[in-house]
Amino acid sequence: MNNSLSQTLKQIKLDKEAMEAAQARQDELTKPRGSLGRLEELSIKVAGIKGKIVRGFEHKAIVTMAADHGVVSEGVALYPQEVTRQMVFNFLSGGAAINVLARFIGARVVVVDMGVIGGFKPHPNLVCKMIDFGTKDMTKGSAMTRQQALDAIEAGIEVVEAEIAKGLDIVGTGDMGIGNTTASSAICAAITHESVEKVTGRGEGIDDEQLAHKAKVIEKALKLNKPDHRDPVDVLSKVGGFEIGGLAGVMLGAAAHRVPVVIDGFISGAAALIATELAPGLKDYLIAAHLSAESGHRILLEYLGLSPLLSLEMRLGEGTGAALGIAIVEAAVKSLAEMATFGEAGVSKEKH
Amino acid sequence: MNNSLSQTLKQIKLDKEAMEAAQARQDELTKPRGSLGRLEELSIKVAGIKGKIVRGFEHKAIVTMAADHGVVSEGVALYPQEVTRQMVFNFLSGGAAINVLARFIGARVVVVDMGVIGGFKPHPNLVCKMIDFGTKDMTKGSAMTRQQALDAIEAGIEVVEAEIAKGLDIVGTGDMGIGNTTASSAICAAITHESVEKVTGRGEGIDDEQLAHKAKVIEKALKLNKPDHRDPVDVLSKVGGFEIGGLAGVMLGAAAHRVPVVIDGFISGAAALIATELAPGLKDYLIAAHLSAESGHRILLEYLGLSPLLSLEMRLGEGTGAALGIAIVEAAVKSLAEMATFGEAGVSKEKH
Repeated sequence: MNNSLSQTLKQIKLDKEAMEAAQARQDELTKPRGSLGRLEELSIKVAGIKGKIVRGFEHKAIVTMAADHGVVSEGVALYPQEVTRQMVFNFLSGGAAINVLARFIGARVVVVDMGVIGGFKPHPNLVCKMIDFGTKDMTKGSAMTRQQALDAIEAGIEVVEAEIAKGLDIVGTGDMGIGNTTASSAICAAITHESVEKVTGRGEGIDDEQLAHKAKVIEKALKLNKPDHRDPVDVLSKVGGFEIGGLAGVMLGAAAHRVPVVIDGFISGAAALIATELAPGLKDYLIAAHLSAESGHRILLEYLGLSPLLSLEMRLGEGTGAALGIAIVEAAVKSLAEMATFGEAGVSKEKH
Repeated sequence: MNNSLSQTLKQIKLDKEAMEAAQARQDELTKPRGSLGRLEELSIKVAGIKGKIVRGFEHKAIVTMAADHGVVSEGVALYPQEVTRQMVFNFLSGGAAINVLARFIGARVVVVDMGVIGGFKPHPNLVCKMIDFGTKDMTKGSAMTRQQALDAIEAGIEVVEAEIAKGLDIVGTGDMGIGNTTASSAICAAITHESVEKVTGRGEGIDDEQLAHKAKVIEKALKLNKPDHRDPVDVLSKVGGFEIGGLAGVMLGAAAHRVPVVIDGFISGAAALIATELAPGLKDYLIAAHLSAESGHRILLEYLGLSPLLSLEMRLGEGTGAALGIAIVEAAVKSLAEMATFGEAGVSKEKH
């Protein structure tokens, strides 16, 4: 991370005054106090992030980062590895779930190649930040070098800063990478100290036998590589993925510019673990969109101290949960900005 | 209920063929099977209701029905009774939470006076179906006559049929009525046989002492009126409210025309109890938007066999939860309609 960003991140904190103003306004709006529940909490948090009460989000984006994983050769995934690349084409032609949901909420999808096997010809809608053609098999050594881990994070910062230059009021994170729940479980175990068994889930839908195998693969990788939980870049390099590093960078870069980040599911959560270990203040800028069906996700969110907005048994990734989460956050922000106060509407307040 | 509607309701059932087609399409879309979780389930349910796969909801409405409650004179509410009428003016001038959230999801708000004390001069955006200037105090006798209960339901059917004539692809229900959580708790206790204590909540935010008093008032009303749980119109007339009857009618009328109904919180849930006791097949046409913070709501949804989409600690009513619920349902429907299939996108399927 460059020095100026590192400096910025140390200084970021929620704007208390803006939050108090938002709370005061919530209490004057024509509804019983607190009756909009988590919408009120969200509107106050966003005011704290932005440093003011905002009226909505004109510019929204989902950053969906794709990369391949060497650990797929250990047989941890249900889909063939080429699906990562095929899905990038699907993102570019607008046919994936994230395209549909992003259109629905009025967000653009920023598709980023962080290291997909096979690579891509230049495409106007594809951001190329390729670190390598997939990570190495983490059961045989480090998934990537330390320099690659740093480069992945830096690339994520660059991606989000380029989007901020175009206009960006809120960002959602998304991922694509066959095998990346394996990497995310390994990161989750390394940082939260939970057992591999508890943080390992069924990914795209593997059966009991495959699940047991996947957990063994993760155990093996952790035992061999011994990631240092006090050093998130070490964890990322040894058992992570390029898209996970990139997403951590997106979170850091967004926060440095006071842009709220709605994090998607388990893979984005693993990226958030890396990013918040680098900059603990970042937590205040993250909003957890949903509780994924992936078993480690709850553990990870508890560790982060984030409470998910939605629980729709989704486990697709791509940023699909984040897209729905952004809609809820926007509803919250608009409620605060657009509702009439008791005074304006001539409505009586509660009896005392 | 008129005979033709009653006949229609007996015949309504989900279209199995359309549901199978929706399921088959979900399984061909470029994502792991089932990975969109409840969005997939919703898209299939809507196909069953509509009898076909739809591309979205062009015409959306929230029907927000307002009425007053005689039981307020027993001191069960935190806000003065005139707030019901004041909030209707707030709905009409667009300053309430439901106006903001309906605008956000692209829905119109249909404001209906089902029996507000003081009444209203004619207003172009207010539907007048006034049954009486509020119900009677249910601790002193029946809240309304049996004929009024039938009239309220019939009025709700008329309201939704008028909206269907204008174009209506999905409808959300909402309520406004100081004191109506008291009526809803009484209905819930009468129909589900749960204890009054368990189904009585804090409404707009009453304290422990007020909560105990509210439960006593409900106990007294139930003991005096002895509503017959086998006769939902009897329950409605003895301990219900005009807006609750009206909302039951909206649900029945919508279902008869294959329009999915997204029900809001506790008061809409009480209306759903009445409506589904009248027409059990209706359950398949209802979608529970959210789990309200009101304590009886979970009990009521379990009785209805409905699982809420959202859990955002909201307890405002007006249709605010339903508005957010409609957004989720529309996201589900659009995913089914707009995503590319494996074949179209050239993406490999899972290994066997």
